[in-house]
Amino acid sequence: MAHLVLTSSSLNLSNTTKPFSTPSNHPSTIGHTMFTFRTPKPQLNKLVLHEQTLLPLLRRGFTVFATTLPVSQDTQTQPTSGFNFNSVEPSTKKKRVMVIGGDGYCGWATALHLSNKNYEVAIVDSLVRRLFDHQLSLESLTPIASIHNRISRWKSVTGKTIQLYIGDVCDFEFLSETFESFKPDSVVHFGEQRSAPYSMIDRSRAVFTQKNNVIGTLNVLFAIKEYREDCHLVKLGTMGEYGTPNIDIEEGYLTVTHNGRTDTLPYPKQGSSFYHLSKVHDSNNIAFTCKAWGIRATDLNQGVVYGVRTDETELHEDLCNRLDYDGVFGTALNRFCVQAAVGHPLTVYGKGGQV
Amino acid sequence: MAHLVLTSSSLNLSNTTKPFSTPSNHPSTIGHTMFTFRTPKPQLNKLVLHEQTLLPLLRRGFTVFATTLPVSQDTQTQPTSGFNFNSVEPSTKKKRVMVIGGDGYCGWATALHLSNKNYEVAIVDSLVRRLFDHQLSLESLTPIASIHNRISRWKSVTGKTIQLYIGDVCDFEFLSETFESFKPDSVVHFGEQRSAPYSMIDRSRAVFTQKNNVIGTLNVLFAIKEYREDCHLVKLGTMGEYGTPNIDIEEGYLTVTHNGRTDTLPYPKQGSSFYHLSKVHDSNNIAFTCKAWGIRATDLNQGVVYGVRTDETELHEDLCNRLDYDGVFGTALNRFCVQAAVGHPLTVYGKGGQV
Repeated sequence: MAHLVLTSSSLNLSNTTKPFSTPSNHPSTIGHTMFTFRTPKPQLNKLVLHEQTLLPLLRRGFTVFATTLPVSQDTQTQPTSGFNFNSVEPSTKKKRVMVIGGDGYCGWATALHLSNKNYEVAIVDSLVRRLFDHQLSLESLTPIASIHNRISRWKSVTGKTIQLYIGDVCDFEFLSETFESFKPDSVVHFGEQRSAPYSMIDRSRAVFTQKNNVIGTLNVLFAIKEYREDCHLVKLGTMGEYGTPNIDIEEGYLTVTHNGRTDTLPYPKQGSSFYHLSKVHDSNNIAFTCKAWGIRATDLNQGVVYGVRTDETELHEDLCNRLDYDGVFGTALNRFCVQAAVGHPLTVYGKGGQV
Repeated sequence: MAHLVLTSSSLNLSNTTKPFSTPSNHPSTIGHTMFTFRTPKPQLNKLVLHEQTLLPLLRRGFTVFATTLPVSQDTQTQPTSGFNFNSVEPSTKKKRVMVIGGDGYCGWATALHLSNKNYEVAIVDSLVRRLFDHQLSLESLTPIASIHNRISRWKSVTGKTIQLYIGDVCDFEFLSETFESFKPDSVVHFGEQRSAPYSMIDRSRAVFTQKNNVIGTLNVLFAIKEYREDCHLVKLGTMGEYGTPNIDIEEGYLTVTHNGRTDTLPYPKQGSSFYHLSKVHDSNNIAFTCKAWGIRATDLNQGVVYGVRTDETELHEDLCNRLDYDGVFGTALNRFCVQAAVGHPLTVYGKGGQV
């Protein structure tokens, strides 16, 4: 059954809080979604999400296709066109961005940031991530408001409306309704089970992870093809798709000369959990639809995201992002910071060689 | 709900029909499952399945793992051990082979052949392939008996029993019961939706193909891990996983020197349909479980299988294999032969460059 929820608020703009941070310079981080994390003193610090970091990367992510080549022909990447996450001028028609998984850690910060930049934003989320917390008895270190209160508060603080569709993208009837209703120009797809440890707990969670992630992304691809063929997909993969090869990791493709002939082929991937593998599967499916149907997609294989604050989440405590520090959903750097803050030894995976 | 069906027969051996063919010599076909197809005159001819072709290939298929290396370490293949499809001597304890998808085109011929070679054989099949025929109004050119009649006839002709478990390997409760009941030493897994055109008919069939194939294979891997950790998996992939690169296709792995360093990496794969991609996903999942859990697997990326008769299916008309010549399930060579036999122009895909 499909669920279609639209949330809005009639309260006026009330920007009561000054943003905490300003953009800073960063080393080259092409292909990684990097959130700034600074530690002037040993405390949890801020996540900064701004144009100098995330947005250019969204434009030049690892795998960019805009081709309509037959499947069997050349697979080299082509530069995409018409995709721009710069601020939308008030005088122009607002670009419409659907953020799937917009109640999650990366999704919420992204949704607020794009809304603040004057995009028309819709969050699509099943809220299943909150269910995982209940089931595994986990809790964000930072208190987080309900998605309804988050969106209402955003409206009251900024005057901006974020639309909300609650449902599962594995349910194509629901997803179709969101596409027909919202008519996105771009989709940023964070809506996947995103924990490697979760995917390795047991068979049922391994199967859930691959079914949820692969079928959800397939549905998004079919929805774009069916309803919004010019819509640009920004898909969150993971640096972990590449594994740990003993040669330099290149962006998506590798030119190989073998037995006298040369070809540029997809960079070999070696996921090391059912979660990582699910994103390898997604990448293969996305690449195929780009070639077969001309889907416009940016497949980000970003590194670890860390920190908790952005300019937008700082505006009100109801807008606060989640910070997971547990062994299942706590990403390494966030967990290390929490452990360091309380004087607990850092818990590394295996012998710590990956840290 | 799980279904567990065991079929046997009390009739005596009655080998009434002389096998039509004898093994012949073949060119080297490593990595391809090749069934002999001879055309002394323009008629549909026989498929021969014997040790000189399929069985050695099953032993030396593309990707053979028998390692317990940690996930992050060397991914080079290791020779497997203890897997041998030669005839079982009557004096020794029979090896037990589970043939998943044993009612299908390749599965039925394989099940009979292994039973004839004195293996203890169980067929596991949901029979969904027969449902596809009904749904798409397709029919095998050769009349095929029900799986129950096939197995009863095999018993009456040879005295050998083939066990039958009817159910879906995506249902782990059912699959667990089959493993606990039959206790396989080896599993040959043909139980996937195997038509590229079928997977491209519409979204629902694309999703079915990937869900069915990926989750089914995940379940088989988990069942082996949980119930029969020494069980050897022979998984049918497809040559089409490799796509059409402009360099020589190697068996599973490619040694690459790049920026002064060298590694042997999984050969880059480029499936050109949701079906082909499902098998790429399977291969990635299987490789991971071999490294992480020490699963023993042979991942065959065989070429097109063709022909219809084997020594065993020739024994009685009730044992006849299916021959699909339609545009969905008819593989190219079988379809071409049927078209040639009736004087119809050969129907190729696109411009015929792949033929």
